[in-house]
Amino acid sequence: MDPSAPAPSPAPATGDRQRRRPRRGPAGIAQIPWRRLTNPYRPIEILTADQVETIHRASLRILAEIGLEVLGDRALDAFARAGARVDRLTRNVRLDPAQVEELVALAPSEFRLHARNPERDVVFGGNNLVFAAVAGPAFVTDLDRGRRPGNFKDFVDYVRIVGALDVLHQEGGGPLEPNDLPVPTRHLDQYRTFAVELDKTWHCWGTGAPMVDDALEIVSILHGMDRDALARKPALMTVINTNSPLRLDGPMSDGLIEMALHGQPVVGTPFTLAGAMSPISLAGAIAQQNAEALFMVCLAQIVRPRAPMIYGAFTSNVDMRTGSPAFGTPESVKSQFASGQMARRYGLPWRSSNATASPVVDAQAAYEAEMAVWGAVMGGVNLLYQGAGWLEGGLTASYEKLILDAEILQMMAEVLQPMVVDEASLGFDALAEVGPGGHFFGSAHTLERYETAFYTPILSDWRNFETWHADGGLTATQRANGIWKRLLAEAVPPALDPGITEALDGFVTRRKREILPTG
Amino acid sequence: MDPSAPAPSPAPATGDRQRRRPRRGPAGIAQIPWRRLTNPYRPIEILTADQVETIHRASLRILAEIGLEVLGDRALDAFARAGARVDRLTRNVRLDPAQVEELVALAPSEFRLHARNPERDVVFGGNNLVFAAVAGPAFVTDLDRGRRPGNFKDFVDYVRIVGALDVLHQEGGGPLEPNDLPVPTRHLDQYRTFAVELDKTWHCWGTGAPMVDDALEIVSILHGMDRDALARKPALMTVINTNSPLRLDGPMSDGLIEMALHGQPVVGTPFTLAGAMSPISLAGAIAQQNAEALFMVCLAQIVRPRAPMIYGAFTSNVDMRTGSPAFGTPESVKSQFASGQMARRYGLPWRSSNATASPVVDAQAAYEAEMAVWGAVMGGVNLLYQGAGWLEGGLTASYEKLILDAEILQMMAEVLQPMVVDEASLGFDALAEVGPGGHFFGSAHTLERYETAFYTPILSDWRNFETWHADGGLTATQRANGIWKRLLAEAVPPALDPGITEALDGFVTRRKREILPTG
Repeated sequence: MDPSAPAPSPAPATGDRQRRRPRRGPAGIAQIPWRRLTNPYRPIEILTADQVETIHRASLRILAEIGLEVLGDRALDAFARAGARVDRLTRNVRLDPAQVEELVALAPSEFRLHARNPERDVVFGGNNLVFAAVAGPAFVTDLDRGRRPGNFKDFVDYVRIVGALDVLHQEGGGPLEPNDLPVPTRHLDQYRTFAVELDKTWHCWGTGAPMVDDALEIVSILHGMDRDALARKPALMTVINTNSPLRLDGPMSDGLIEMALHGQPVVGTPFTLAGAMSPISLAGAIAQQNAEALFMVCLAQIVRPRAPMIYGAFTSNVDMRTGSPAFGTPESVKSQFASGQMARRYGLPWRSSNATASPVVDAQAAYEAEMAVWGAVMGGVNLLYQGAGWLEGGLTASYEKLILDAEILQMMAEVLQPMVVDEASLGFDALAEVGPGGHFFGSAHTLERYETAFYTPILSDWRNFETWHADGGLTATQRANGIWKRLLAEAVPPALDPGITEALDGFVTRRKREILPTG
Repeated sequence: MDPSAPAPSPAPATGDRQRRRPRRGPAGIAQIPWRRLTNPYRPIEILTADQVETIHRASLRILAEIGLEVLGDRALDAFARAGARVDRLTRNVRLDPAQVEELVALAPSEFRLHARNPERDVVFGGNNLVFAAVAGPAFVTDLDRGRRPGNFKDFVDYVRIVGALDVLHQEGGGPLEPNDLPVPTRHLDQYRTFAVELDKTWHCWGTGAPMVDDALEIVSILHGMDRDALARKPALMTVINTNSPLRLDGPMSDGLIEMALHGQPVVGTPFTLAGAMSPISLAGAIAQQNAEALFMVCLAQIVRPRAPMIYGAFTSNVDMRTGSPAFGTPESVKSQFASGQMARRYGLPWRSSNATASPVVDAQAAYEAEMAVWGAVMGGVNLLYQGAGWLEGGLTASYEKLILDAEILQMMAEVLQPMVVDEASLGFDALAEVGPGGHFFGSAHTLERYETAFYTPILSDWRNFETWHADGGLTATQRANGIWKRLLAEAVPPALDPGITEALDGFVTRRKREILPTG
């Protein structure tokens, strides 16, 4: 029976932390300024050391005795050249345990990805933590216009807000599909948008070598580096998925090879939904995920030893009543803990996701996102992919969910900051001065610190019920609607040398003509 | 660029996990059955061992050099008899470090609280985890009737749902205030409700000895134990708050003494909102919390050595712009991690809370609740007080929030279950049988496990957008409205010997006549 509704005296009238942190002028949304994050906490472990080894051995057995089906000829050739057991007829590739261990050991445990603004570089591995935005949805939604197919106007708007949200370290490869653009050249418009609108790192498409090559060219122009320099200073990234179970398709394997050849990092992510694309028991799903992830790491190392790779983990479960994928579930959290342990066993940076199956931006979307974010961060994740904006199991990018997730990520970033314990922060003199039954609002100790002591939310409403109600009684989702509009209205693309913009446009125009000569 | 919206084949048509777990007939809500929980994970630590000792020493210094103001004469007498430095004029009590350490060491590190149904006993301390329901709100709200003052009809309904939700181990002491009942006898109607409607443990009011004595009498009747037996098998619990900073009021100290005298456990909880009732810097707030919590533990041990105590932690922060308390904040999470470390330093069970400042059951209520629950559980909490139902900084008990939190707690309970790693769960044969590009829906490995493999939610909606939309497009909060109504409609109070009911009623009637003879 705690004293509910304490009504302390009001704060000093001048207290307004927002003014301390303007990012885009006085009308701007208060945000935590851009910063790289490290996770100070010891990762949560669900597996014993013995269980990690058991799963490791099970994965090696899968690779040695079942193998993967590889649809791309370049990949088959590469594996064959490296001495793997390749059956050209069935396209089956099996790897001996010793070879897997040898190849995986080549992959770097930490690497830097270079942004066009060096302050926006990100580091993967160790206890570094990178938040990336949503990628891949076919639809887009907001409270005003409802759910609709993705289109280029929304694509650009969404990318601008991703650029404006300082807590997002990285763009994820296209927040929504611009369905109104011609498919063969769509990626060029997307890459140009990333290059011009963002000074953060971004992902290209990994579906085939041409998609990667066009991105490499754009990044080369943007950074003023040739391919050799780019290989030494990677600046491009992509996600490669296996078609679980145990299949690596042609475009994906070609894309992986092209990235690895040029020394650009790949997030090799199996799509292991337990009960559908992998065994229903989590240990089996993790063993399969581990086998497929290691297989992709091996291919990259065959192509280019020490090519940077991230261990992608996406294991969740399906709803066995409907076959629908479920996210932010207890099973996905346990898989996150286990995946982190497996990735660390190999010294590989680890990727997980902020996912929800909710069809709407509501309490479920929030609690599933929190489950996913906490599971990832407590598990020691290095790349939180799909970090903000994902809705409906990844079918839809939501503007309001983007803001909701940005608040969740900002709060998590603050949880990772150390607690200062020293003479001043212990505040003995302040407590002695205030004494029993007093309050700290007016004490010098408070006045010296009140502007910076606490996290200032962008979305949370902490006013009392009457004030909140009198001000329209908006839910968090409704408030998020106002916030993304302000961010979009105030977004200013980071400055770019006009010569570079011109070169980019020249390349895009030329490539479009090559791809669609009759267009 | 993960493959979004995978569309696996439908599950076996007979798959319906709900039917496996009926709790209240075929129309009932699927729930995880009652079970006690232990937390298998190593608690997250934000403080180094040195920092823990620094805070410990700062707390001892507070108790030795500033002391607490104690408004109750019984407490002053007890401290004086025990050799503390007591100033009768200022009611200031100071404790020497050696005495604090000696007294705190007496408190048990683990104890059991007995329910009238022995299967509902709960254990505090070690890695045990107990979820308790909301307690204390003045208001009650639901989507149909809106926000209104607490009343006895809602009190009983709410307690019934708390009883029906198997994930809640314990009632917290009154989910809302029955403002329509006379103040002097209100507690008797509350206790009777708990005794009759619940077979779980519950909390009494700690505001004065008579409140405690009436509860002791009711528990004695309910358990058929006299006071001595009750002291050996504690069955009653309460929360005692300091009036932070550094004040222990008369009713609270009397209640604490009465509970301790009878060997019943007390959750001694300082109300340290950083920036208002404690220093604005978290280290200072924790040092003060620690001093006040240890002070209450000392008082209990003076009254009855080895009296069971729980280290209560409620440190959060205020919004410095408005003075409003904020909950589920990054600062409160960091305080949770630190509080757990302090409690474990003394070998005391630790209590934290599931709190939110949101004025409405929306995404904010969900993400603040998740922050609080994850912060507590990852910090190794033993008692998650206010575990379900709390809204608006504790001013209001919400029916829909109760269901939302029950889902959050059920998911967390599942996260704590071990991952089985053995030959069968690794599923090598299933993977070999399904092979590259297949799916697992029809495999024997799946069919043997699909009914129990995954958590079945009570609130989450995982259907696709079209199906969800066609079915009314309800948000999680709207769905929660339907769920609590079904739970309430189907709730059946656990059987109770009519002789006990009669004895309870006789006692309540007699006490009401004594307290309000003219009534």
